[in-house]
Amino acid sequence: MLNISLVQFTPVWGNVALNLQQIAHLLKDVQTDIIVLPELSTTGYSFITREETITAAEDFNGQSIAFFKQLAKDHQAMVVAGFVEKSAGNVYNAALIALPNGEVKSYRKTHLFFREKGCFNEGDSGFFVVEHPLKDCKVGIMVCNDWRYPEAARSLALLGADVIACPSNLVSDVWRIGLPARALENKVFVAVTNRCGTETRQLEDGSTQTLTFTGGSVLYNFTGEPIEQANKTEERVITLEIDPLLTRDKHFNEFNDLLNDRRPAYYLG
Amino acid sequence: MLNISLVQFTPVWGNVALNLQQIAHLLKDVQTDIIVLPELSTTGYSFITREETITAAEDFNGQSIAFFKQLAKDHQAMVVAGFVEKSAGNVYNAALIALPNGEVKSYRKTHLFFREKGCFNEGDSGFFVVEHPLKDCKVGIMVCNDWRYPEAARSLALLGADVIACPSNLVSDVWRIGLPARALENKVFVAVTNRCGTETRQLEDGSTQTLTFTGGSVLYNFTGEPIEQANKTEERVITLEIDPLLTRDKHFNEFNDLLNDRRPAYYLG
Repeated sequence: MLNISLVQFTPVWGNVALNLQQIAHLLKDVQTDIIVLPELSTTGYSFITREETITAAEDFNGQSIAFFKQLAKDHQAMVVAGFVEKSAGNVYNAALIALPNGEVKSYRKTHLFFREKGCFNEGDSGFFVVEHPLKDCKVGIMVCNDWRYPEAARSLALLGADVIACPSNLVSDVWRIGLPARALENKVFVAVTNRCGTETRQLEDGSTQTLTFTGGSVLYNFTGEPIEQANKTEERVITLEIDPLLTRDKHFNEFNDLLNDRRPAYYLG
Repeated sequence: MLNISLVQFTPVWGNVALNLQQIAHLLKDVQTDIIVLPELSTTGYSFITREETITAAEDFNGQSIAFFKQLAKDHQAMVVAGFVEKSAGNVYNAALIALPNGEVKSYRKTHLFFREKGCFNEGDSGFFVVEHPLKDCKVGIMVCNDWRYPEAARSLALLGADVIACPSNLVSDVWRIGLPARALENKVFVAVTNRCGTETRQLEDGSTQTLTFTGGSVLYNFTGEPIEQANKTEERVITLEIDPLLTRDKHFNEFNDLLNDRRPAYYLG
């Protein structure tokens, strides 16, 4: 058994120091083993140009990474947090995975959404799972629009994920059709941490873009049913106790094993 | 534009002639272009032994195939109908595709469910699409438990399916989490024809097995939303007009194309 915490809040555009303060404040009294923050939790979402993302990007020596490493150490928890990653001249919409022992890894979003295509490099980390150092649990990471691609969650399940952490900045409710299926079709827990609030930015043609993020952060059981969810606007930490070991036996009846019954020889793509 | 018809009814176990009569009666006054019948629509579902399926199986010269060929001709429609197929000593849980010109093909269920594993050979047709001979529409076929595997619908979408026909004999409502996602994540129509009613059979150990089929046949729009659905028990033909061409442009906003944005180099399995 372990505790997993989904931190729904409203990052303030471009104010990294304030956003890290908000995160620290929300988690002050939380005892947990896995912390899942939204996509681009340190900066806000609405990058318009590549120049902006390059300016905001941090490498593994950056202030956000130092903060999340300390957060992981203080809570003795795995932290999964969206941030803008700089590496070798590229800039990624990434999720940092920070462990209590100071280790960090980065998952780089595979399927970019909308204006992100002009601002970020396509992720090149591929899908991977991280073993929790203190609990028997494997965590796979995907980010927001990756939900739309069943191949993402499937890849993580095939790698042995018990829990998929999905930092998100979702602006519609369409994902509510797709993400429960990811849990069910892979028999894994899926932790969707969305942000809330709105952001208004000026586009290059002088028009403005206002995005409203739809909150509703939710932990899906491996049956595809929501265990608990936030409303659309509240800043809130949902902490739930789960047993990741329940996902290991992929039978869904005495005859059928979800992953062993796959027939890859017949699959295209 | 074309009409698609989902025929929900209660096949009577083992009475092929009566079941074909029922189908003919239900479709008597229906003008349509695609007819989707349930899985194992000619025989009922609850095979207990392989001997039973071998006895019930038909090759392409069988009475059911002759009936569906005539049905396709009479309606000038594509017919998709579950039946037990015999071929080269094997027996398959199959869906016949009958065209108005007399052509027939068979899709053999790729992912067998529960006791089917002891009664049928695993399908070896693979996934394919069939072009409607009279309308601009490509139809892909999968059967029931194939819904659980996103690889099935994805393969059909990659082959160009506008509509996925899914003859089914569903005994729970879990599929309602998965099948809408198949429509959405591939931007295709999904026609789920389920049967209704119950079947009670004696198992080899002397105990009895009663299955209640959950009806609820439904046509999902390519957004994942149901367009119309039957209730759990009614015998009913749902006929709806759809525009299959709306599925061809896979953009879901000005930046993102659902299939072109896939990144197969990063997918496992």
